[in-house]
Amino acid sequence: MPEKNIISFTRGVPAPETFPAEKLAVCAQEVLSQESGQILQYGQAAGYKPLREIIAAQSGVALERVMLGQGSLQLFDHVVRMLVKPGDAVLVELPTYDRILTLLRRAGANVIGIDLEEDGISFIHLEKILHSGIHPVLFYLIPDFQNPTGSVMAAVKRRRLMELADQYGFLVVEDAPYRALRYSGSDLPSLFEINPHNVLQLSSFSKLISPGLRVGYAVLPQEIASRVIQFAEDTYINPSYFNQAMAHRFIQKGWLQSHLLELKQLYAKRLDSLMIALDAAMTGKGTWTHPSGGFFVGFFTKQSVDSDHLMKAAEKVGLRLSDGRGFFVQGGQNFIRLPFCALTPAEIESGVRRLAELF
Amino acid sequence: MPEKNIISFTRGVPAPETFPAEKLAVCAQEVLSQESGQILQYGQAAGYKPLREIIAAQSGVALERVMLGQGSLQLFDHVVRMLVKPGDAVLVELPTYDRILTLLRRAGANVIGIDLEEDGISFIHLEKILHSGIHPVLFYLIPDFQNPTGSVMAAVKRRRLMELADQYGFLVVEDAPYRALRYSGSDLPSLFEINPHNVLQLSSFSKLISPGLRVGYAVLPQEIASRVIQFAEDTYINPSYFNQAMAHRFIQKGWLQSHLLELKQLYAKRLDSLMIALDAAMTGKGTWTHPSGGFFVGFFTKQSVDSDHLMKAAEKVGLRLSDGRGFFVQGGQNFIRLPFCALTPAEIESGVRRLAELF
Repeated sequence: MPEKNIISFTRGVPAPETFPAEKLAVCAQEVLSQESGQILQYGQAAGYKPLREIIAAQSGVALERVMLGQGSLQLFDHVVRMLVKPGDAVLVELPTYDRILTLLRRAGANVIGIDLEEDGISFIHLEKILHSGIHPVLFYLIPDFQNPTGSVMAAVKRRRLMELADQYGFLVVEDAPYRALRYSGSDLPSLFEINPHNVLQLSSFSKLISPGLRVGYAVLPQEIASRVIQFAEDTYINPSYFNQAMAHRFIQKGWLQSHLLELKQLYAKRLDSLMIALDAAMTGKGTWTHPSGGFFVGFFTKQSVDSDHLMKAAEKVGLRLSDGRGFFVQGGQNFIRLPFCALTPAEIESGVRRLAELF
Repeated sequence: MPEKNIISFTRGVPAPETFPAEKLAVCAQEVLSQESGQILQYGQAAGYKPLREIIAAQSGVALERVMLGQGSLQLFDHVVRMLVKPGDAVLVELPTYDRILTLLRRAGANVIGIDLEEDGISFIHLEKILHSGIHPVLFYLIPDFQNPTGSVMAAVKRRRLMELADQYGFLVVEDAPYRALRYSGSDLPSLFEINPHNVLQLSSFSKLISPGLRVGYAVLPQEIASRVIQFAEDTYINPSYFNQAMAHRFIQKGWLQSHLLELKQLYAKRLDSLMIALDAAMTGKGTWTHPSGGFFVGFFTKQSVDSDHLMKAAEKVGLRLSDGRGFFVQGGQNFIRLPFCALTPAEIESGVRRLAELF
């Protein structure tokens, strides 16, 4: 591609060439011909039962703990509206997913970031906060291939976190949209697997099939499940069963497994390209994470930079960057998120070369 | 059908046999084969542009005032979260759509019902409230084939309402999901048509194509449009473009117009059956509305009844009723909503006979 085309290291979106449009058309055709009376009608807010059943079985929980929604961000919004009052302390990783910060600030939460290390949150920082007398209502984390850093939380830290959650009585919200996209190494136990009673796990099919379907899900703690589902009903009656039935059909046909293999092959190569490009062009200009899955590499510049100036300078060399500050409660002037899934190796290489020109 | 089967006068849902499943399968197939890169990806929160363009053109407003969402209830929730603070006065018709009451109460609104007459709200009641020093933030109404009464607001009342809205400075929210379903008579000007600047109009394709698509829309006042759309983005990123593209395709093919004709033919007959059945069985036991469109007839019993007792007695004769109190701010013990679209004439006749047994 010509160097002039703008290369976008901004949003964490899947590669559109991976969208299984033909297979989804088959799913749409089948569910519309076989289940139209149900999927085209109003339904219960918890969502299309056969898909909930698959998730319940995979998670080893009762059906009533599983709810589907129009993406997991919206499901988290329900939970925050129900559980977080203005001024309540909420913990997040620092940096974290920018939309979560926006949503929590809107709810008036006292958002407290816990520093991330290479293998997950700093327990020195977390225990300092907990000992200070702050009583967090919940802790939102992305333990696997974190957004925006790509980091993975170590197993020992996962277990320690769940001990502290029990001890201090806060709910752990585990967002796991990238967990199935591991390109090397082995899965660690999820927070939910460590303690299925005190973890609210969020995930979705946005990164695994298509964001456009808008099918996310939550596995809810038993105590709040029926209330969250009622809250959803009071907000929008029900999400689209049609889309959920399509996702279900896609899974039932065995297409999700084969699709995941394709995604992992494609994205692993792109991650390799990014690692090679960073080594070649950015050595000495900062440090970066070395993820084994997911969508993102986190780049930390050697010195703080003026983010506004950096983004403007980037535009001049044909590069679009996100504002690093968006991922932090405060600060973030030395951070750049590098999403790699929706860029070709050539774009990645060219993009990193342009990035190097800025330092 | 055997008399034993339960007949449900509960939810206002379309007749499932009307769902255009085959046509929607064609739409799904086409949009997936032609636009998958867009409709299966994330998108702007305002929704799929070609469908917004149709609505903007029909409404005679700029594109940026039109937003799509997962049903119009959810869009109203955004507006309420943005504009209504706890304790703020919000006006509604009395009775009104039960889910709106739930949503407003959840927001902590001071919900004030304005009595409905046969041709819309009582202006004696409304002016009394406005003169009392109450400053409502907004007034939610369903002027055409109101839920739950089926009543239509007279043209003179529509104009007077918009004068008062200007004078007292409240926003009018016009919910118009049934407006296109008129079975006799002629359209009156919508509130939006009378004053396109101070009316937020909500509607959806749930009653016109299928609720399962979850495609609703709002035409927003210019001053708040970009803020509401940003609020939606912060809540769920975007609604499904796939579903919106299907609705758009359905319209572009001319199928919505022919489908509306079929719906009106079918539902008009069902309304006739209900009118005949009420005349035959309920004369002397109460009064009821005589709608010229929509989904509902409102029945007012002669004396107040114990709603819990009535619903239980109804179950015993194979009838399921909604709780009339759900449609009122307080009271409602003499009200029964009779939705007729999803029942056959035989079910309607049988249902009304069973209802007569209760009085």
